[in-house]
Amino acid sequence: MRTYLAMLFCVLSIHVVAQTKPQNFIQYVNPFVGTKNMGHTFPGATVPFGMVQLSPETDTVQYEFNGKYNSTVYRYCSGYQYDDKTIVGFSHTHFSGTGHSDLGDFLIMPTVGKLQLNPGTSENPESGYRSRFSHTNEIAEPAYYKVHLDDYNITTELTATTRTGFHQYTFPQSDTSHIILDMISGIYNYNEKNVWTFVRVENDTLITGYRQTNGWARTRTLYFAMVFSKPFYQYGHKKYDQNIYKGFWRKFDESQNFPEMAGKNIRAYFDFKTTEGEKIKIKFALSPVSTEGALKNLAAEIPHWDFDKTKSESQEQWNDELGKIVIETNTLKEKETFYTALYHTFLSPVVYMDVNGAYRGLDQNNHFANGFTNYTIFSLWDTYRALHPLYNIIQPKRNSDMVTSMLEHYNQSVHKMLPVWSHYANENWCMIGYHSVPVIVDAFIKGNIKNTDPQALLRACVNTAENNYYDGLNFYMQLEYVPEDKNSSSVSKTLEYAYDDWCIAQMAKHLGNQKVYDKFITRSQNFIHVYDSSTGFMRPKLSDGTWKPDFNTLSTHGQGFIEGNAWNYSLYVPHQPGQLIQMMGGKEKFTQHLDSLFSMQIDDKHFAETEDITRDGIIGNYIHGNEPGHHIPYLYNWTGQPWKTQERVRMIMETMYSNTPDGLCGNDDAGQMSAWYIFSALGFYPVCPGSDQYAIGSPMVKSAVINLENGKQLVIETKNQKPGNVYVNKVVINGNQLKNNLLLHSDLIKGCHIVFYLESKPRD
Amino acid sequence: MRTYLAMLFCVLSIHVVAQTKPQNFIQYVNPFVGTKNMGHTFPGATVPFGMVQLSPETDTVQYEFNGKYNSTVYRYCSGYQYDDKTIVGFSHTHFSGTGHSDLGDFLIMPTVGKLQLNPGTSENPESGYRSRFSHTNEIAEPAYYKVHLDDYNITTELTATTRTGFHQYTFPQSDTSHIILDMISGIYNYNEKNVWTFVRVENDTLITGYRQTNGWARTRTLYFAMVFSKPFYQYGHKKYDQNIYKGFWRKFDESQNFPEMAGKNIRAYFDFKTTEGEKIKIKFALSPVSTEGALKNLAAEIPHWDFDKTKSESQEQWNDELGKIVIETNTLKEKETFYTALYHTFLSPVVYMDVNGAYRGLDQNNHFANGFTNYTIFSLWDTYRALHPLYNIIQPKRNSDMVTSMLEHYNQSVHKMLPVWSHYANENWCMIGYHSVPVIVDAFIKGNIKNTDPQALLRACVNTAENNYYDGLNFYMQLEYVPEDKNSSSVSKTLEYAYDDWCIAQMAKHLGNQKVYDKFITRSQNFIHVYDSSTGFMRPKLSDGTWKPDFNTLSTHGQGFIEGNAWNYSLYVPHQPGQLIQMMGGKEKFTQHLDSLFSMQIDDKHFAETEDITRDGIIGNYIHGNEPGHHIPYLYNWTGQPWKTQERVRMIMETMYSNTPDGLCGNDDAGQMSAWYIFSALGFYPVCPGSDQYAIGSPMVKSAVINLENGKQLVIETKNQKPGNVYVNKVVINGNQLKNNLLLHSDLIKGCHIVFYLESKPRD
Repeated sequence: MRTYLAMLFCVLSIHVVAQTKPQNFIQYVNPFVGTKNMGHTFPGATVPFGMVQLSPETDTVQYEFNGKYNSTVYRYCSGYQYDDKTIVGFSHTHFSGTGHSDLGDFLIMPTVGKLQLNPGTSENPESGYRSRFSHTNEIAEPAYYKVHLDDYNITTELTATTRTGFHQYTFPQSDTSHIILDMISGIYNYNEKNVWTFVRVENDTLITGYRQTNGWARTRTLYFAMVFSKPFYQYGHKKYDQNIYKGFWRKFDESQNFPEMAGKNIRAYFDFKTTEGEKIKIKFALSPVSTEGALKNLAAEIPHWDFDKTKSESQEQWNDELGKIVIETNTLKEKETFYTALYHTFLSPVVYMDVNGAYRGLDQNNHFANGFTNYTIFSLWDTYRALHPLYNIIQPKRNSDMVTSMLEHYNQSVHKMLPVWSHYANENWCMIGYHSVPVIVDAFIKGNIKNTDPQALLRACVNTAENNYYDGLNFYMQLEYVPEDKNSSSVSKTLEYAYDDWCIAQMAKHLGNQKVYDKFITRSQNFIHVYDSSTGFMRPKLSDGTWKPDFNTLSTHGQGFIEGNAWNYSLYVPHQPGQLIQMMGGKEKFTQHLDSLFSMQIDDKHFAETEDITRDGIIGNYIHGNEPGHHIPYLYNWTGQPWKTQERVRMIMETMYSNTPDGLCGNDDAGQMSAWYIFSALGFYPVCPGSDQYAIGSPMVKSAVINLENGKQLVIETKNQKPGNVYVNKVVINGNQLKNNLLLHSDLIKGCHIVFYLESKPRD
Repeated sequence: MRTYLAMLFCVLSIHVVAQTKPQNFIQYVNPFVGTKNMGHTFPGATVPFGMVQLSPETDTVQYEFNGKYNSTVYRYCSGYQYDDKTIVGFSHTHFSGTGHSDLGDFLIMPTVGKLQLNPGTSENPESGYRSRFSHTNEIAEPAYYKVHLDDYNITTELTATTRTGFHQYTFPQSDTSHIILDMISGIYNYNEKNVWTFVRVENDTLITGYRQTNGWARTRTLYFAMVFSKPFYQYGHKKYDQNIYKGFWRKFDESQNFPEMAGKNIRAYFDFKTTEGEKIKIKFALSPVSTEGALKNLAAEIPHWDFDKTKSESQEQWNDELGKIVIETNTLKEKETFYTALYHTFLSPVVYMDVNGAYRGLDQNNHFANGFTNYTIFSLWDTYRALHPLYNIIQPKRNSDMVTSMLEHYNQSVHKMLPVWSHYANENWCMIGYHSVPVIVDAFIKGNIKNTDPQALLRACVNTAENNYYDGLNFYMQLEYVPEDKNSSSVSKTLEYAYDDWCIAQMAKHLGNQKVYDKFITRSQNFIHVYDSSTGFMRPKLSDGTWKPDFNTLSTHGQGFIEGNAWNYSLYVPHQPGQLIQMMGGKEKFTQHLDSLFSMQIDDKHFAETEDITRDGIIGNYIHGNEPGHHIPYLYNWTGQPWKTQERVRMIMETMYSNTPDGLCGNDDAGQMSAWYIFSALGFYPVCPGSDQYAIGSPMVKSAVINLENGKQLVIETKNQKPGNVYVNKVVINGNQLKNNLLLHSDLIKGCHIVFYLESKPRD
């Protein structure tokens, strides 16, 4: 009978979609969301998971290095701040929503009049090549960005394919039109970040070259090929290097019309005479391996000069990807917030290989991706929580390839470690844990390992977890916890290692490897060693087994935690919430902890420690902008008070996400913040990736149809969706009422119909 | 009849060689020749044309950059000075005999006792890792070098294959034995030369990495793989960088047992415990493209740990190459001088590709050499004169591949220019002219273009000669001479361009390209525009057509010349000696000029301008160490007084070459000085490469059998060879007396027998 009903619902849901006429989803995306204050997103043009993310820089802070980075650059992680009044130029690579940065490669700026090769300052734009602009003359859509550069009367339009940026500049009449290629400009730029740059003017329309940097990525090289739609009539460059050995290059005047440029700090220009309204276009392709590769990418991806055609095709790609979830909502704001969040979840990881599969490996050798698409930008401490689990529903093929990319990273790693925070053939070691593991295990448990040997993946997980010089792991393996006197953020590390270890155990169990299972299921219990029952908190322990004195449960820094204090991190045992609740004194006491967390006030001193967050980004002491809390609102499901989860998640969605430039309460964190929103808006959340379960929340949507890659549909419907009706009376899946508050991935992925019955009061 | 006689002589000569039992030629090579003072050769281990040239550094001068190079580094072009008392270590790449330098990559030094990572000073060797040594404990042979490091009681032995160095260190008993890998050390090193270095400790015996430098080669990267015969028990490194962004690498103690090192200035060490007499061996492979390539080279070239086997095989290679010319001489000194010179002519160009053909191109992309061996190190201003012509006799296959390598360089050049002075995927533009042209044309005229389209070569020559921003060429093309007020060394450039142009015309004529022939045969006459009949000298002309005032015929600097004054350069019209003689007033006046040149005295001021030369390196005002004069002694052949050529060349061979460390009177110039000697010792010289002719001199050998690659033999015999008998009474070739003083390549290459009849007085 149940089967019959399920079939019936599937048929119904297919009907629903079949009746839906082609929709325009990109109209609901506002790429400016998160560009104001701490969101660290960018408004520029990119295709889903595209390597080229061509976007304006409103400032590029270049600071003198003194052993520490300059904190003023933090605002410019994505190169763009909505409140700024000037644009410096348009560069080709960006992180989306990160809390640290890099990239900003190959800045292009069109100007007219007197040639100025320095960017100038925002206070005095005339001092350099930057231009004033205003938002009234600015448009941002998926795969399209347009702005008028007021100082030059130049209209800029940008679009992109996976590896190629397409610029279209509409010039005024001028005999002194310039296009500047600034090889110095970059994000998180310090005075010696450029290790080397190399530029060749192959002919009067084609430029090739590369930029090698020592930044967040220690050893990074990116190659390009740039072609103009019109020949320049002269060109040149200026080198800003002090200590460059000239040798016999001194026999040339390299500064003008000399086709080979090399050095650490170079800015080049190309001069044109333009008629009124004349368009000069640039196709700018990237490659991880060579200028030859960039040329191949350019030829393969944009073999014409039709800007509108590329824009249209790239926007079609977005429409296809966004259309994987078709929602209805009560308000346009909700719809825009949702689709913008979905957009943000498709901005990274990015494709990192040439059209022929060539990419640069972690060993700095060139490799070929055989049978998979290679990806980079793995901000795993953030994204293992909800972004990759989301991919396991709506991007399983890509997620499988991301897992393969991680295994290749492991194979190329001299440390024999899976990625921690990796980008562009580099590991930057940002944040803690070894959270490739939950990504891999979650994909494995959910059947999304398509082209990789699971045994090889398990070995990679185990070797990563047994590295004896990584971040306190040696102590963790000896003492069963990380001692704070030996390694800072020790409680966070212990808790996250224990969770990751649980994931390894799950995979080992499925693969029948009892030895690994036993070892890691034991390690997964290590969270108990940092729980101090006398205070009721997870607490830093010293190597002699005593608790760290002067314990402050509100502080983060120096208290054994990172991006979350004891109040939050004490709730981090995603794999054993029941055991955690028992350990912390049972459901009632645990509920009190949760209630207090959301209702207490924290003072400015402790707020200041939260990082990345505006005051809007916290509820009491719950800090939504910092990932360690993302599962917390869902924990009421285990205390018998799920309505508090429903209440909180609706409040968070309502107050911390919006469709405006300030619509993110903190860094989007490479899509994790947005992925939290997508899940929550649909009514469930992966509290413990690596398990098959999702905890029920309270959906924001009126309805959602998720078009799965297997051709099935997951249909979510709400009854009585209106303001105030945040409580879930019951959930009916394929006609059967859900008995607990958990959904199973295996059910969802078969295609099913879930109905949430909402009302204005808790059901209990 | 003549044919019959020729056949008879060929048979005879084959008989001569067939009777020759296997000989040991390497015993006659003294790699120390030229290591004292200005020879700039190195004593270390290499195979013929090997990329790895593994040799001791007695000093590595690292200087603070101030916009100019530090002249004290000049003594250390090859890293070794015979008079020095300490050795710093053993690096893998060297130029042989150059007047500027680079390379010195990957210095290895074994030590015992307290670990010191800085090289220390020669005055105070204890201040660093360097060691005292003495020549009594030092042996240098082709492909083998041995030295005792006195401070550590370590015996070093080195051998090499084409791409792999093989070190064998015999240690004393020590618990603190170290092997240092100095990634900072280099030749012509300034404080910011290292752009980036990257090292991976793959396991406890294998290291990989690369070094990227900005030196004479502006953008150079070299990769390596290094394997120890015994595992080290610990290792570490020190980074000397000031301004390196650490980021989250700070979570590691990178200094000890951390397998990934990256930065600009790194020194690594590997620690061992050794028993008395224990040998630790290192195989160290290079690659132009990747560490993966280096590993392939290592596996292919030395798949074992038998040092003596590699030494023996590599010495066998030398014996085969040296045996291409089998000579008899009156004295051992002459034989040693000859075979050492021959050895020096086989040290560069070097093979520049992996065993699978992969190499880095001038465009910094990786390429594959299809159907040829790719070579680098083209010091063409030097080597077009005699070295490449010598190869056209004894290394035609390699010379053909070198020409192909030059064409590939051209194809990859953004300037569309053939090499000027190129090495390791870089053009450094050293010296003047476009002397790839005579190398190509000489090979073409002599039938040694085997795997390249001659039409493509001609196009490359023409495009190179028509570049409008290279070194005064635009003026040369407009005015028919280079004006000194626009471009310095203008006379030298005009004369050399004119000669190169004549070569292009010859090739065009053979290929039936009348248009190119006409253009370049006209240009080849441009030497007439810088001849000042009022002074009888080539003289710098200004752009307004007037002669530069204040003309000093003895000065070089600022007088329109380079490495040669007006006395010498006025004789530089190798393609039209008859016309030159006419222009300069006829044979008698020209002879007077020559006589004066060899007999006049120059003062210290003008001697100081000669560059690279010891006082022994000049005869009067003739400066043998500077190449523009190399053809001059042979010019008497055109004045009717060939005995003066015979006298002079014997004098030069006798006084300017020897078998001792100070046996070179100036830089060996990548083999050109030695090639002059080989030709002259055999009795003829290519005054005008690009023609089929050799001018007769006076052979030093008693006899010589040249084993040609075509299986034929060129036999040279002298009659009455004894001290004082320097004059050639007659020359008989295949039984026919030579009517003029010219030999034809086409005759030689068929295999023939030449007899020089010597006596103590001129024949005239």
